[in-house]
Amino acid sequence: MELSIRSRYAINPIQEEDTVAYSLMKAGKEVIKLNRGDPAVYFKTPKYVVDAYVKALREGKTFYADPTGVKELREAVSKRYKSIYNINVNPDNVIVTQGLSEAIIFLNAALINEGEKAVIFKPYYTQYIPDLEIFGGRAVLERYDERINWNIDIDSLEKSIKRDFKKSNKIKYMLITNPNNPTGTVLDRKVLGDIVEIAKNHDIMLISDEIYDEIVFNGAKFTSISKLAKGVPHMILNGGSKDFAATGFRVGFVVVPEEDKVSKAVSSKLGDFAKIRLSGNTPAQYAIAEALNKEREHKDAVRKMVSAIGKRASLVSRLVNESEFMDAVEPKGAFYVFPKLDMKRLALKNDTEFVDKLLKEEYVQLTRGSGFGESNHVRIVALATENVLEDAMQRIERFCRRHSK
Amino acid sequence: MELSIRSRYAINPIQEEDTVAYSLMKAGKEVIKLNRGDPAVYFKTPKYVVDAYVKALREGKTFYADPTGVKELREAVSKRYKSIYNINVNPDNVIVTQGLSEAIIFLNAALINEGEKAVIFKPYYTQYIPDLEIFGGRAVLERYDERINWNIDIDSLEKSIKRDFKKSNKIKYMLITNPNNPTGTVLDRKVLGDIVEIAKNHDIMLISDEIYDEIVFNGAKFTSISKLAKGVPHMILNGGSKDFAATGFRVGFVVVPEEDKVSKAVSSKLGDFAKIRLSGNTPAQYAIAEALNKEREHKDAVRKMVSAIGKRASLVSRLVNESEFMDAVEPKGAFYVFPKLDMKRLALKNDTEFVDKLLKEEYVQLTRGSGFGESNHVRIVALATENVLEDAMQRIERFCRRHSK
Repeated sequence: MELSIRSRYAINPIQEEDTVAYSLMKAGKEVIKLNRGDPAVYFKTPKYVVDAYVKALREGKTFYADPTGVKELREAVSKRYKSIYNINVNPDNVIVTQGLSEAIIFLNAALINEGEKAVIFKPYYTQYIPDLEIFGGRAVLERYDERINWNIDIDSLEKSIKRDFKKSNKIKYMLITNPNNPTGTVLDRKVLGDIVEIAKNHDIMLISDEIYDEIVFNGAKFTSISKLAKGVPHMILNGGSKDFAATGFRVGFVVVPEEDKVSKAVSSKLGDFAKIRLSGNTPAQYAIAEALNKEREHKDAVRKMVSAIGKRASLVSRLVNESEFMDAVEPKGAFYVFPKLDMKRLALKNDTEFVDKLLKEEYVQLTRGSGFGESNHVRIVALATENVLEDAMQRIERFCRRHSK
Repeated sequence: MELSIRSRYAINPIQEEDTVAYSLMKAGKEVIKLNRGDPAVYFKTPKYVVDAYVKALREGKTFYADPTGVKELREAVSKRYKSIYNINVNPDNVIVTQGLSEAIIFLNAALINEGEKAVIFKPYYTQYIPDLEIFGGRAVLERYDERINWNIDIDSLEKSIKRDFKKSNKIKYMLITNPNNPTGTVLDRKVLGDIVEIAKNHDIMLISDEIYDEIVFNGAKFTSISKLAKGVPHMILNGGSKDFAATGFRVGFVVVPEEDKVSKAVSSKLGDFAKIRLSGNTPAQYAIAEALNKEREHKDAVRKMVSAIGKRASLVSRLVNESEFMDAVEPKGAFYVFPKLDMKRLALKNDTEFVDKLLKEEYVQLTRGSGFGESNHVRIVALATENVLEDAMQRIERFCRRHSK
């Protein structure tokens, strides 16, 4: 009895060092874990959100939900897009998923045939590639370009897509992450406009993962793709995990604003995939619905969290750039810093060895850049308190000196 | 832009009449919905389970969980199998999933290559087929035989598997449902022993969906496959949805009791698929962990629920058998009655037309048997109160008379 071939794609580099980390902890070492982007560990889920969850439970909302999401949540999501982005979304075109993770699974299941392609930009969020490959797809890897602050070089993108179309390989969708994980970049409005044009011209479904859309700082301005993609089939991926510091709720959603034939077919098919798994967690959906509707409470909570995150990300970014062993573009959103390691100064093979040895020697857990498709980088989660982050950065610096050449 | 070919498999017959049902309700009709097997609608989730959930939330357990399940839950599941079935299960070989639904997705992802097969018995639980086909697999359809109270004719099964192996089509797993959905059958211990032998002889992973293992009545005795499959690679699918009347929590689990090479590889790979979707709902896992550990409270709650379900299922079964238009094997477990329609007496094309017209004329929503692979049957969910079930059965009888020939 052998496992399936696709099984080999089921890899998550973010947690691959967890076994080592936990055994070090068991041995009494003080491990600083900066690998998992979980705001709920460092910022309490706001009390009004937890209260809403408890209320739903006490009211007996413990049955199966509508498979595509409880009406209250789909309506609250629709209202949010009107209120924040002035976009009209029919609640029927909101599909609630078990975290954004399930949304990525559904969209690949619905769109990708064996051998078909998707345009993915590297460095990419780790999950995009396995979920594409599990359904037989392959990535056309484009770049966020570090030289232009991890924005996209549109000319190069346009050329590459044309080339790929000539080879008659079917590209089904193009997926951007904005604000970005792992780089913390907020994409330029001009770049987004060009991307919409490319998607339109080549008949590619445009997908924007905007899970960090409220976590923007250092004066950056975020633009949702929905503001620019009027008349072009597109999906927005979002959820309650990051903006509400409620990762463990597993409430994600897909928003399909347009009502053309393609958009309608996709929206309806995502709903079909939701139906065969019956339901997401019901009380958590009511909690996020109420949380979305309490705009004032949310604004207060998210402002405080984002202010703290901005400071932490800037601190890590500054300390990285003070080091002679690495450089990073200063992040403007999300909560990651993604430094490039200066491998000419380090007596280490690559980012994988860097991350592994750093954990074993200095008890700091990062994620290797190659896990995001970008070798010789590392991802640092900038969510811990400033004291802890400073401690971690000192350990990293000490580690680099010890392994310098 | 076209949808994927596999999209066509994303079908859930249980909810296909929901749009009609909801529009009838909107028009003021009193629709009796007997299509969805959701005990949490009819039996409150026990207070001690909800209390545990609230406690987890108040304690701030709102972060990402261990992707394969929080330790407390994996240990509680292990303890349950020791306590009820005297089976030793390493908590590392328990994989917590977002409902049993996600377990079925993961196991197909991990086992099935394009064109490979799985032995599925019809009538089957609706989700088995789409999840197999979505990953390129095909079903070898065997039978639960109505003439022997929906048990399995082992000689016929053995012959058929031999035949299929001759055609050199790779059968990866064999999946049984015990107690059964939709028939309510509790499989004979002798039959289970023979099935274990067949799986062993042909090197097929044996999977037993035992989600209804505590919902057994009318004097039946349930045997978990884990009692008989010592030394044979197998998985048990279960969860908190049915035994704890907590469907909306979405807490399922896969138990892999054996520690041979195949079992270990499968268990570890299911964990990998769990890792790429990050986490299940965290506080719900703590709730089910505590619920599993409170054995006395659980026993009290489940005894009351099962006693009521037994009466309701027997009532429906009796009324079905009093009708001249249908017959049903009396269920011994779960909460379904699965009558065969006497199509010779009915001026209707098939079960699909029966279900559709019944809803539109008498406002009773059932599920067509063909959705479970068994035409000219219907599935009735026997969870509503006896008054409601009697009302529904009167409407069905009236409908049959009106369409008799």
